[in-house]
Amino acid sequence: MIDHTRFLSDAGRKMQQSEIRKMGTLLAETRHVVSFAPGYPDPETFACREFAEIATELLLGGDSHVLQYLPTRGHKPLLEAIAGILATRGITATPEHLLVTTGSQQGLDLLARVLLDPDDIVLVELPSYTGAITAFRNVRARLVGVRQEADGIDLDDLERVTARLTAEGRRPRLLYVVPNFQNPTGLLIGRPKRARLLEWADRHDALIVEDDPYCDLYFEDVATAADTRPIKADDADDRVIYLSSFSKTLAPGFRVAWMTAPAPLAAHIEIAKQAADLCTASLPQHMVYEACRRGLLDRQVPRLRRHYQHKRDVMERALCQAFGSTLTWPAPRGGFFLWASLPEGMDADRMLAVAVRHGVIYVAGGAFFVNGTGKTFLRLSFATPPPDGIVEGVRRLAAAVQEARDTETATRS
Amino acid sequence: MIDHTRFLSDAGRKMQQSEIRKMGTLLAETRHVVSFAPGYPDPETFACREFAEIATELLLGGDSHVLQYLPTRGHKPLLEAIAGILATRGITATPEHLLVTTGSQQGLDLLARVLLDPDDIVLVELPSYTGAITAFRNVRARLVGVRQEADGIDLDDLERVTARLTAEGRRPRLLYVVPNFQNPTGLLIGRPKRARLLEWADRHDALIVEDDPYCDLYFEDVATAADTRPIKADDADDRVIYLSSFSKTLAPGFRVAWMTAPAPLAAHIEIAKQAADLCTASLPQHMVYEACRRGLLDRQVPRLRRHYQHKRDVMERALCQAFGSTLTWPAPRGGFFLWASLPEGMDADRMLAVAVRHGVIYVAGGAFFVNGTGKTFLRLSFATPPPDGIVEGVRRLAAAVQEARDTETATRS
Repeated sequence: MIDHTRFLSDAGRKMQQSEIRKMGTLLAETRHVVSFAPGYPDPETFACREFAEIATELLLGGDSHVLQYLPTRGHKPLLEAIAGILATRGITATPEHLLVTTGSQQGLDLLARVLLDPDDIVLVELPSYTGAITAFRNVRARLVGVRQEADGIDLDDLERVTARLTAEGRRPRLLYVVPNFQNPTGLLIGRPKRARLLEWADRHDALIVEDDPYCDLYFEDVATAADTRPIKADDADDRVIYLSSFSKTLAPGFRVAWMTAPAPLAAHIEIAKQAADLCTASLPQHMVYEACRRGLLDRQVPRLRRHYQHKRDVMERALCQAFGSTLTWPAPRGGFFLWASLPEGMDADRMLAVAVRHGVIYVAGGAFFVNGTGKTFLRLSFATPPPDGIVEGVRRLAAAVQEARDTETATRS
Repeated sequence: MIDHTRFLSDAGRKMQQSEIRKMGTLLAETRHVVSFAPGYPDPETFACREFAEIATELLLGGDSHVLQYLPTRGHKPLLEAIAGILATRGITATPEHLLVTTGSQQGLDLLARVLLDPDDIVLVELPSYTGAITAFRNVRARLVGVRQEADGIDLDDLERVTARLTAEGRRPRLLYVVPNFQNPTGLLIGRPKRARLLEWADRHDALIVEDDPYCDLYFEDVATAADTRPIKADDADDRVIYLSSFSKTLAPGFRVAWMTAPAPLAAHIEIAKQAADLCTASLPQHMVYEACRRGLLDRQVPRLRRHYQHKRDVMERALCQAFGSTLTWPAPRGGFFLWASLPEGMDADRMLAVAVRHGVIYVAGGAFFVNGTGKTFLRLSFATPPPDGIVEGVRRLAAAVQEARDTETATRS
């Protein structure tokens, strides 16, 4: 048998497996584990009955084009529905700006390919979403981290980093942010900061990639729709590329997300998408469109807010009870994630094997940091498990942390 | 407004629009055109009623995971069904070799990224499928053409091209072929040639990418299943990466295709797919699996053979009648395409505007040639239009050709 690895490209050799997907695979193999790892929506929330009706009507409706190829940009009525959704978020978009993508992951991948040459600089939050980090790394961009504080990205650090790069004769081409209930920290960028990010982009002639899958999922006890107003909504200079998705509201299995970009860039992204998959799946696009048209999405979203808020409550309560002050975290105001910090000196990645043995998994924080830090963090998703699963998972996690601490103490003494 | 094109990467700037997709867009905008352009399957053949049943049962079956994320490699039962399909084609594949892809286009894109560095040499047939050409060009591979003859790729030319490259100190890393009813020529690579391609790959330490979407669609009056036996089936040295799809048999709108590759390469392709779209859409994967399990695919395929054979008959008859000997083509023995040649000196690309005015479109042949030739060819798909549409389209095409010839004659005199 020949050695096939000789045939790998330099890029292929360097691509790294996603820590999140790795956990997903582990999960698929081990039945009795409680998973706080991948940010999968709760399948209990999927509107299966309504989607069965929609699928039946579409497939029996006499228009077999629901199973045909679609234009690369997407199903036209769906693009119009997306423009309507964007309008409610304060964003004006016409068809020349819009593209349906096969999940926002494809949007990130296409942006990386169309906008970044090797060694171009992209600024990302510390920590940031691993899917974006991987997409940017795959085109050999250079990723530079910017610190976060309680209200999101630290603007002083952003200026410091930019100044340092400028002094080296470099400049950032892109800033990537998840402004609403960030993956992994759950943080929200404060409203005044959003305007200042636009000023920053203008001053340094950079683009902002705003990745916003969670904006609808704010928790009404601690946040409002106004808190989630996208940066793009006030983007007079057209410096922001905005991504959002139906994955967290309707279902991820449709792989239907979208992007709005300045028209000349959207045209190039369309060309890149032609070569990537020709078009996003048709039946899912038609089904998502129907879910918009029939008001299913509008009915779904307030339900989801309550659903995930309750799960957050269950997780926070269980964590407080099991850990006291051993574990700390910023209170999630929306989204899927709780970003927990272990006591100094512990290592979440090393602890993972112990946790698996105790029947619980999470994503170790290091994967989200482009500067090699973040060893003490764990990203806990409260979205997927049922409430009693959350309680049980937290109990197991506490046992795992206890064991890891005991082992470290024993090793030290 | 800022100039956004400044932000394009070198790769983004160089990506070229697909000629086929361009026609698709044109088609979506103009209602009364007869389209011989994109190779869309006939929507009449889609098993909409059966798929409505399948979708209903899946969505009401109580397992809402049909709308959840799936493992990047694909839905496990579907992968097993694919292994079964491959076995009927003489190919042994286990889960470590297999991946579901978002259409074969994604398979080609992932292969390009994982296997090719800039300036690496890929051999392609003259002409070859534009989607593959684009995927390889996007990673800046150098494409070198190999001539075809009546029974497919010309092995003497393959040796000549390889020798010429070797003399330059270069060697081909990949040979890309569509062995069965090639897109665009409709040609079939003869059986003895297939074995010799494997010998060639072994002698020159190259890989073969075998793209095989049409193998089931042979026309029983002039071909048999044995004629379509994949190169991969006799690949003792594991040098062939084999792609196939449900797009031409069940429906393209599912975007469900697959690839079987040597295990170490499949592992890297999986990693590349994580960053490209996380996974292929779930409901479509479940639906395609059910179509396999319930025997729908098996029932569908012989029907399709007869259906497209009839359409080929209609097109050939209409062309003979309308053109006499003005247009020539190799008789299609399967698949979707008839590869027609205009009289010397005519230019199919230039003629396209005339054809559109007459209400018919096709894909001009030049797009399929990596060496700048092929101006006299047109790719005519007989798959999509209904029989009377084919007859009417041929009538319009004849009028367009007549007008183009008259204009050229008038210009010359």
